Amino acid sequence: MAAAGAGGEDGQLKVLGAWPSPFVNRVRMALHLKGLEYENVEEDLADKSELLLASNPVHKKVPVLLHGGKPVCESLLILEYLDDAFPGAGPAVLPADPYDRAVARFWAAYVDGKLHGAMVAALLGATEEARAAATADAFAALDALEGALAERSGGKGFFAGDAPGYLDVALGGFIGWLRAWDRIAGGIKLLDAGRVPLLDAWAERFAALDAAKGVIPDPEPIAEFAKVLQARSAAAAASS
Amino acid sequence: MAAAGAGGEDGQLKVLGAWPSPFVNRVRMALHLKGLEYENVEEDLADKSELLLASNPVHKKVPVLLHGGKPVCESLLILEYLDDAFPGAGPAVLPADPYDRAVARFWAAYVDGKLHGAMVAALLGATEEARAAATADAFAALDALEGALAERSGGKGFFAGDAPGYLDVALGGFIGWLRAWDRIAGGIKLLDAGRVPLLDAWAERFAALDAAKGVIPDPEPIAEFAKVLQARSAAAAASS
Repeated sequence: MAAAGAGGEDGQLKVLGAWPSPFVNRVRMALHLKGLEYENVEEDLADKSELLLASNPVHKKVPVLLHGGKPVCESLLILEYLDDAFPGAGPAVLPADPYDRAVARFWAAYVDGKLHGAMVAALLGATEEARAAATADAFAALDALEGALAERSGGKGFFAGDAPGYLDVALGGFIGWLRAWDRIAGGIKLLDAGRVPLLDAWAERFAALDAAKGVIPDPEPIAEFAKVLQARSAAAAASS
Repeated sequence: MAAAGAGGEDGQLKVLGAWPSPFVNRVRMALHLKGLEYENVEEDLADKSELLLASNPVHKKVPVLLHGGKPVCESLLILEYLDDAFPGAGPAVLPADPYDRAVARFWAAYVDGKLHGAMVAALLGATEEARAAATADAFAALDALEGALAERSGGKGFFAGDAPGYLDVALGGFIGWLRAWDRIAGGIKLLDAGRVPLLDAWAERFAALDAAKGVIPDPEPIAEFAKVLQARSAAAAASS
């Protein structure tokens, strides 16, 4: 991260997060891209802090960005807020062109709706059949994102062109999980270079950025965390 | 609507919509608030046009805003686009202050996630028990929005203060369904003046705006449309 960003001068940016969360990690990556300093607070999701519960009483979820003590919730909305509140700090995360902004927002919403939804269902589905169907949905979502990358990047390295932006960090938060998938799901590779070559190369490129290094979790801890989630989900289903 | 807005001068704004859709209606209300002229194209959702399928190939849903032929999808993102693409046309829909923008976006996402989700489940739930639980969720969502209105409006008439804005149109699109609920659900009133007096008064005030008149559907046709949805949903469940 940058040494002396606007957030540091303002002195009061804090992220309430959790290392495996794609939503937390996209926020941290955006802060890094913009060169904004912040305090990273790791929440215990099994025992959430009073600060988290008070900051996001509606959803009680990470990430929360605290700016001068005021909470901003929902990761994509935090990205918007960073551009709105720190227009002079580093590059804008969102594209400047209105239409490009709309398209980037569309695909980020798609990541959260379709890709994330399919990955959760593929992980926690009650039956093997349900998990297989969800895995097919995840592949379809990645195919669509491969198409968006081909169309949006104009042959350059990132969704936003030469430099990473909103959609790059929106999807970039998922790279840890995508890379860990073969460990989680018995060898199924979601980021398959044969199927989604552009996305696979993009993920390599994005993960090598200073903004992403140290944020993207390694496959092994993600796979272990996934097992905990699966066990918890199975136990909840068995007791209901 | 305004007689000669920027959309008219640009000559090329078109909404692909459907009269019962809260999402379509919020877009039309925002266009009216901003004084942007547009062509309203009513889609037959049982037989979608080639233009709709080509404009929103990913979700195949209304609304789509076409601007000079280029499609913008997802209603909340269309609201953002209108401010971005027509900064000089009428009042901005979103608040100017970064934090107020974040809060308005948060509650609009809440409307789409929690309130809409609960209303759909209350309408189409497979069992009476499921529908009752979803109705309780809808009441809880409206309670939360009552709190947000108390906090955000500062005692003024709208979520955004003296004049309606982003969150007003985001929720305003649902007024037709909220008002029709007692006909849909055997007398259950969602906009209950005893329970959510501020929201009830807000809905009256919003519905009386020129921007909303002619867009909010009457209770009777909504209730009939709801019956069609319920019959279709029951038939699909019976055949699966």
